[in-house]
Amino acid sequence: MTIEQLITQIHKKRSFLCIGLDTDLEKIPAHLLDEDDPIFAFNKAIIDATHHLCVAYKPNTAFYEAYGSKGWDALSKTAAYIKEIAPEIFTIADAKRGDIGNTATRYAKAFFEDMSFDAVTVAPYMGRDSVEPFLAFNTKHTILLALTSNQGAYDYQLRDVEGRKMFERVLETSMKYQNSENLMFVVGATKAEFLLEIRKLVPDQFLLVPGVGAQGGSLEEVCKYGMNKNIGLLVNSSRGIIYASGDVDFASAAAAKATDLQKLMAVELAKIT
Amino acid sequence: MTIEQLITQIHKKRSFLCIGLDTDLEKIPAHLLDEDDPIFAFNKAIIDATHHLCVAYKPNTAFYEAYGSKGWDALSKTAAYIKEIAPEIFTIADAKRGDIGNTATRYAKAFFEDMSFDAVTVAPYMGRDSVEPFLAFNTKHTILLALTSNQGAYDYQLRDVEGRKMFERVLETSMKYQNSENLMFVVGATKAEFLLEIRKLVPDQFLLVPGVGAQGGSLEEVCKYGMNKNIGLLVNSSRGIIYASGDVDFASAAAAKATDLQKLMAVELAKIT
Repeated sequence: MTIEQLITQIHKKRSFLCIGLDTDLEKIPAHLLDEDDPIFAFNKAIIDATHHLCVAYKPNTAFYEAYGSKGWDALSKTAAYIKEIAPEIFTIADAKRGDIGNTATRYAKAFFEDMSFDAVTVAPYMGRDSVEPFLAFNTKHTILLALTSNQGAYDYQLRDVEGRKMFERVLETSMKYQNSENLMFVVGATKAEFLLEIRKLVPDQFLLVPGVGAQGGSLEEVCKYGMNKNIGLLVNSSRGIIYASGDVDFASAAAAKATDLQKLMAVELAKIT
Repeated sequence: MTIEQLITQIHKKRSFLCIGLDTDLEKIPAHLLDEDDPIFAFNKAIIDATHHLCVAYKPNTAFYEAYGSKGWDALSKTAAYIKEIAPEIFTIADAKRGDIGNTATRYAKAFFEDMSFDAVTVAPYMGRDSVEPFLAFNTKHTILLALTSNQGAYDYQLRDVEGRKMFERVLETSMKYQNSENLMFVVGATKAEFLLEIRKLVPDQFLLVPGVGAQGGSLEEVCKYGMNKNIGLLVNSSRGIIYASGDVDFASAAAAKATDLQKLMAVELAKIT
């Protein structure tokens, strides 16, 4: 999927919502556990109920790997199902992979080719030769961790690296990589004040923003400091949407929560268009 | 497995060799492709031929994920097979995972519990709350990326962070995490001169050293600067061993290459014991 197609979708749906499919057998409604593939059954119901409200889905691979090859199948089926019923949706494998050269290419092929994801999240620590193998896939998108919304971000990401914060070095350095036009960045919403500085370094790149709501970030602030002329934001919500109800009404409850966020997003979009 | 059991094994086998099981269907001998599970068939033959020469096996998860749920099954079977025929062997899932809190715990459970690996490699970028969930598994080992052997290490790992190199900050910071006694570190052999500095920061920790041979590192230098009173080194070789021959004699050819390395290791061990 191209960036232009993503932007068109955002304007059409009046939404830049990404729904995190962090599907956990311990949290999904009990009646689904009788299904052949409870993880997929849950995801399918959530997707059916919400795909008109969001522009992206982001399964976190940890939740699928936790169930071994069955989980891996559920992830694969979920990716295929999204493309089947809502081909306009941008799909992100939140895998946070990081390895070098041909090994990185293996990961890229697994997510981009075998499962047809549009994007994958990647960790920056190993540098250029761990990121460029993902960037080499020209119709795909590599979402690099820059500033995450957890407390551990203070360990390294916010420290000074030769006169600039570590996460700023990640933005600056990675934009020099080959095919950097395929880069997006993860920037946590709990640190919205940093978005102003981030936009100086990466004015045009899309930012994937977790941490609105559950982790305390404000959508209005994120938009104020982070939005660019192409919107440039995908705001993610996971548990707040998919676990809105633990009962048989879980899908409609998820849709209601997604609608709340979509309406707030429409207000923000109206400010700039 | 405890560190003491690992050390005992090293002395018994006169080896601190780790064999990387980076199994690639495009590189394994053609006759194996007729097997039900060619990846597992290859690994089984390699393990049968080499387990008396090495103390650890390290499958890189990228090679298994590349084959979807079938690859995941092959990884799981490989981990189980090692524990079955050589329970003394230290098994490492080279996954380089990095995510936070409960999500990290999912990864930890997948590798430590479901597949019974003794250790998993972890990326440091997200900080404390991405590493401690792994460290919480008390009989297991978390191998944190510190200084990798690739060119991209210069992007961040070797840069100055408030007066110290980034990889030194990783060593220093992570040793303050809860249960840091369960930490090991990845330190590339191509930068053996750094081992002297590294040992000042982590005198007692085991180091997993890739890059000897294929990537140009010298075993003698690694031992000179990196060995401690408990040996403290696992030196990895992957392609140099497992692809020593692409023909029907692949397992015995792998054993011959592993024997070469084991003999060099015995010489190094004799210097200190």
